[in-house]
This record gives sequence, C-alpha cells and structure tokens, in this order.
Amino acid sequence: MTKEIGVGLIGFGVIGSQVARLLTSEKDRFQDQTGVPITLKRVKVVKADLERPLVGIIGPSLFTTDEDDFFATPGIDIVFEAIGGEEPAFSYLKRAIASGKQAVTSNKEVIAKHGMELTVMAKEHNTSLRYEASVGGGIPIITPLKRDLVANKIRGIYCIINGTTNYILTRMSKEDMDFASTLKSAQELGYAEPNPVNDIEGIDAAFKIAILATLAFRKRVRPEEVYREGISRLRSQDFRYARELGFTIKLLAMTKDDNGAIETRVHPVLLPQEHPLAKVDGVLNAIMVDGDLTGQVVFVGQGAGPLPTSSAVVADVIAAAREVISGQAEQLPLLSGDATIKPMDDVLTRYYIRMSAADQPGVLAQIARVLGMHQISIASVIQKESDSKSQTAEIVIMTHQALERNMRMAIEEINELEITQEVSNFIRVEA
Amino acid sequence: MTKEIGVGLIGFGVIGSQVARLLTSEKDRFQDQTGVPITLKRVKVVKADLERPLVGIIGPSLFTTDEDDFFATPGIDIVFEAIGGEEPAFSYLKRAIASGKQAVTSNKEVIAKHGMELTVMAKEHNTSLRYEASVGGGIPIITPLKRDLVANKIRGIYCIINGTTNYILTRMSKEDMDFASTLKSAQELGYAEPNPVNDIEGIDAAFKIAILATLAFRKRVRPEEVYREGISRLRSQDFRYARELGFTIKLLAMTKDDNGAIETRVHPVLLPQEHPLAKVDGVLNAIMVDGDLTGQVVFVGQGAGPLPTSSAVVADVIAAAREVISGQAEQLPLLSGDATIKPMDDVLTRYYIRMSAADQPGVLAQIARVLGMHQISIASVIQKESDSKSQTAEIVIMTHQALERNMRMAIEEINELEITQEVSNFIRVEA
Repeated sequence: MTKEIGVGLIGFGVIGSQVARLLTSEKDRFQDQTGVPITLKRVKVVKADLERPLVGIIGPSLFTTDEDDFFATPGIDIVFEAIGGEEPAFSYLKRAIASGKQAVTSNKEVIAKHGMELTVMAKEHNTSLRYEASVGGGIPIITPLKRDLVANKIRGIYCIINGTTNYILTRMSKEDMDFASTLKSAQELGYAEPNPVNDIEGIDAAFKIAILATLAFRKRVRPEEVYREGISRLRSQDFRYARELGFTIKLLAMTKDDNGAIETRVHPVLLPQEHPLAKVDGVLNAIMVDGDLTGQVVFVGQGAGPLPTSSAVVADVIAAAREVISGQAEQLPLLSGDATIKPMDDVLTRYYIRMSAADQPGVLAQIARVLGMHQISIASVIQKESDSKSQTAEIVIMTHQALERNMRMAIEEINELEITQEVSNFIRVEA
Repeated sequence: MTKEIGVGLIGFGVIGSQVARLLTSEKDRFQDQTGVPITLKRVKVVKADLERPLVGIIGPSLFTTDEDDFFATPGIDIVFEAIGGEEPAFSYLKRAIASGKQAVTSNKEVIAKHGMELTVMAKEHNTSLRYEASVGGGIPIITPLKRDLVANKIRGIYCIINGTTNYILTRMSKEDMDFASTLKSAQELGYAEPNPVNDIEGIDAAFKIAILATLAFRKRVRPEEVYREGISRLRSQDFRYARELGFTIKLLAMTKDDNGAIETRVHPVLLPQEHPLAKVDGVLNAIMVDGDLTGQVVFVGQGAGPLPTSSAVVADVIAAAREVISGQAEQLPLLSGDATIKPMDDVLTRYYIRMSAADQPGVLAQIARVLGMHQISIASVIQKESDSKSQTAEIVIMTHQALERNMRMAIEEINELEITQEVSNFIRVEA
C-alpha cells in the first residue's frame, strides 16, 4: 500500500508558487481524491526565487538551488516542472522520467518540441508525462483529446488560444484603437509582457496548436511546421471594414485534416460575426474541436493566470498520484510517426484584401483582371472615399475561395500595377 | 496479455445500433487506441429490434433475445446498456457488474437514481461504471468533472441540457410563436417526442443536473430533490418583454453550493443577453462549470443524437478496455454521503412577474405595497396599453433579489387584490 505521494516542484514563479500553495492549503481535499496524502517534498529554485514572500509559508527547508540535491530527495514520486522555456526544463523532465518518476509540466515549448520523445521515454520507464496546463490554462483540452474524443476522426481544431492577442484585438475592434497604443495599454495593465514577441507574433499559439494537432491526428506536427503570422500588421480600418462586411478579426490557431494532409496555421482571420468563436472576447480562450461524430464541440474559459493553470496542474498531479497508487502506467497509444504537412501554397480559403490605388476610372477593372487571371473571383468590393491630397482611394475586396499560391502571385502583380499604391493587407477568412 | 476485448451490447435502438456499427466499421482504428482488438460479441435485443435493417449487417448470430444466453456468452469484458429507462436497465447493469464486467451506459435515469449504488458495487467487484453519454451527448463533461476539474471547489454548474426544450424556446423567441404550435412543429420535425412530457416538464434535465451535482459536490443529489418547472407556462409575450428588458428565456438546469447547502433546480430563467449561455440556440447543449480556480469554463456541443452519443459511449468503451488490459480499476473516490439540499423557499434570486390588472389609477401603488411588505423591491416596471374591452392592462415587474418564500406569499396576496386579474407568470432571473 502506498502511504504517501511525494511531489517535487521545479520552479517557484507565478505558477509554481500557486501550485505549492494549493498542494499545501488543500491537502486534505486532495487526499480525499486519492485516499493517500499528497505531500510537497522539495522545491528546486534559482536564487532569485528565495526572495519571494511565499518562501516563508512553504518552509525554507524544502528549497534547494541544487539540481542533484533536488533529485536525490527521497520520496519524490511526481515531478512538476514550472520553469518554462526549452532548457533546462527539457533536461529536468528527462531526468525525472529516466528515474521512473511521473512527470507533469505546464511548458508548451518543451511539449511542442519534445513531447513525442518524452512520451516514448515515459512509456519505456513505465511512467507517464502529463501536460494539461500547456494549452488552454484551466480549460480541459489535452485529456478530452486523449480520452473523451478518441472515437472521433478529428476533422479540425480552431482556437483562440492566446489571451494577450485576443485582448488586444478585442480592444482594437471595440474601441477603434490602433495596434501600437493598444499594445502599450495591454503592457501597462499586465496583459502583455514587456517583450511581447512570443504572443504578438503567434509563437505561443504555434506551440499550442502543434500540441493539439499532434494529439488530434496522432502524428507529430512540429512547431516550426506551423504557418505563422502575427497581429502587428492589422490596422484599425481593417476592423471597421470587417465589421461592415459582417465579420470580426481574431488571431486563430487552426489545424485541419485534408485527406491526410495536415494544415496547421496561426494568423489573423476574418470570422463571420455568428461564428462560435467570434464572440470570445478579452483574455478568454476557446477551442473548437470538429469531430466526425460529435460535430463541433467548443470549450471556453480562462487560458492563463496562476489559478486556472494550477487547476490543470493539480488535476495532472492527482491523476499521476492515482497512477503511482495503482502501479499501472496509462495505456495510451503512441503516435504513428510524422504528419504530412500541407504546404501553405495549397491552402484554399477566402481572402480580404485592402489596398490603396489611384482614384481614377478603370482601376477596379485592372485589379479584377489580375485576380481573374489567377482564378480568383471577387465576392464583394468596398471602395472608400479617396484621399483628396494623394488622389488615392482605399479599396477592400472580398474574394471567393482561392489558392494561397494564386493569391500571392496576384498580389505581387497588383503591387506592380501603375495604378496601385500598395496592397496594404490581406487577411484570410474562416467560415 | 489480453488478446481481445469483448463487448456485449444490450439494446439495439438508435444509440445501440450506431455503437454497434461504429465498433464494427472502425475496429482497426479503435485497436490502435488500445493495442488489442475490441470485438462486439453479443447483442441482447427485444423481438422488435430483429426487424431493423442493421441486423443483417452485424450478423444474425450475434443477436439473442434471452438474458441468460447473453450473460453466458464467453469473452464479454464490457457491457454497454443502451435500452434507457429504469428497468430492466438497472438489473442488467447490476448483473454485469456483479460478474466483474466493465459497465458502460448512456442511461441518465438509472445513473441519476442508482449511480451511487452501482459505483459502490463496481468498486467492490474491482471494476468500473462509466456514463459519459448520460449527460450532454457528445460533449465531454462527466470525465472533466471526475478528473480534469477535481482541483477546484465547484461553486456552481449552469446548463442548457435538453435540446428539445432549447429548440422550442429558441423558435418561440426568434419567430414569436406560441408554445403549442412550436411544440407541434418540433414534433413533426422529430425534435420532440410524440409524448414530450419528459423534456417539456424538465424531467430529463433534472436527471442530468442531479448527475452533475453529485459529481461536482461529491455528495449524492437525488433527482427528486431537484426543484423542477417546465416550459409550458411561457407565453410569446414573455419573450417579447424579456427582449425589451435585455434578456432571453432559457430552460436552465443549475446547481450551486451555498456554504454546504446545495441548490439544485430546473426551470425557465431570464438570462441577460450577454450571458455566456444566452446565445446557445436550437438543439445545442451547453454546460458552464464555475470553479474556484478555473472560474467559468463552458462546454458547448450537440447534446443528443446517435453520432454524438456514440462518441461518448465508445470513449467509455475504450477507457474500459484500457482498464481490462491494465487489470486495475480506476482509483476514483467514492461519494461522501448525501447532499444537504437547500429548500426552494430559501432561494434568493431576482424575478420577472407578469400580471393583468385593472386599468385604473393606483393599481401599481397597491401592487408595490404588497411587494414591499414582503421585502421585495422593484427594479423596473413595464406597463402595456390596456385591453380596451376588458379594461385591463398588462404589467411586467422586474424585482431586485428576493427570497422565493416571500415572492410566493406576495404573489398570493397580489392575486387576492381586487384590482388584479391574475399573476400570469413569474420567471426567475439568472445573472
């Protein structure tokens, strides 16, 4: 009989310290869940962490800055890695698994890059790797994909999975603000990091959609295989035109299975205002899974923050504890190799194109001719009053479905027309 | 080593036959999930089922109408009960569990009434009972409550959990139709049963919220302890007034933990138009779980139909198969006894009251006086043009929060006033 489950925690930042607090304050309740006490045994920190006020609460003797000391602590059954980033997190997780410990992490980068290797390694060592907190914060999505939706052939996953960008886009849309000042305000309010590149450029979302695609299709999708565009090219008039056309603009992370070719991309999209994800505003996250049996299932909630994230982490810790008690690793299937990625050139979608052109007769005809030559047909056009100084007009075109390859060639040619000043933006449309 | 997992199916209606079809047609894919083939071994039917076209597809030798014959079939590891209703389903599940088999059911009535007894019995026989399909069709909600959200103290669950009534209310709201003709149309389209009482009166929703409350609070909530009102008292003007006031009307199933007193109720409510559940229309289901760590998490999808339901059933069958292979029952905690139910009289909420009264001066003052005597304060009033023939006016009052006990006494007294014709409806408000 297992008498106690020991947890070792690596990292004492916002997430790590919240998990430590929860394991300590709710110990009785979590014991009810497993029948055995779950005890925080050791915390691996860096020196700076020792200044945090919580250190006193947890008990100073639990802390160590020494890796070997941490791993030599007796009675650690479960290691929770909460430092983030690729290294040394990846090495710590390997070390934990190699010694047969249960591994739990909230680290999307390590899982997106090395999840397959760590899972295989865990299976070899008769233990498990869990990472519910790596995507969607408090929203259950990893376990639902691993267990609850496995009877489905997943057709696609569509998500708003980065709270920072969704907060910025929501304010740009509702308050008619420009990108730079919205970002600045988000940083001041703590919704965006001082260095926001991971969020703004879709890197964070790309890690997450790579993880979800890999689980959904049971073939590895690497984060560098995710086509990625950030939100910094969006202008306030894009939101106005989108609204006029019945759409809203969101940074969507999506993956689709097109007869075995996996499309995986993160970029701004126009969503129809009645789309299930169109009303997901502010820092909320939402994940829509489209299965052949379930149809569309949507999960919505807080995708970040210490409390929601600790919900996912502690659920994993409790599941790991049950596994230690039963002595049986999860019988989950391994992946069946690498996914075949559909080249971005082959993606078929509708487009929104905004351009400035000379305000003179025949301009639209020339643009339409170029589009037509590339098999792109126009669904609707908005032409806005010209700028009288520069003698240019702003033209917004919505196309029917077209190939990305054709669209890129058409835009190049439109840019070379004498009458066009520039194609200022083009945004894909999801229906 | 387990060489094969055998499934016995009881019932060959819409759900049973779809699960049989899926286990047969997707056998290879489900084998990938467990490493072992999952084989349909026997199907217990009633004579009428033998007329169904699918019987030929599955192979006639698999069918039996004899219970003993079914349970004596060698190699059945998992029994899926798909007949619905309390008996004989309950007896079949007991018999399956008593013989150490894994039990899977989509039967909300049996689980709401006997889930605790069956779970205890399963633990005694070192096996498990699974019932993901009993609530929310293809939406994962049972497993998320059992595993993914266990770190939370659940504060409440709010759901639209009956597709038939949501379809009817959506049409009444959007098409300004009355209840009787909407029900008739829903029946003609197959969205409502010929005998719709279980849906219309909230009985189905009460079974489901009893199941969710029991899981969320880990104390038994019996279906007869759920306060229940159906939708048949709603009139088209209620929808019009609600819209005017910024609300929509939904049949909500909800449960809340008020310091250990569990509120569990199913009845129509006014929801603010910006509420996360207000836009869940048609046959869709949605379940909002409010946890102390996650905050509000919302799950939306198709709550009924053979395909979504079979997704949940087969996920349970695969989980049961993994358990057979590992030889270890799930280490889930048992319930800790019966819930303390908060009496409906003690419920505190806002109210919408619609009444007809004499069209004469001083009427509102008299009504307000009665409400005030019962500590009910008025938030807003709509008085509609009088019916010139009967000399009556329609008055709609929105109150601030009040106790149900006080509201019922006030309505009795208002009904006795000479100037009031009747209180036509009162509907609780959720914010």
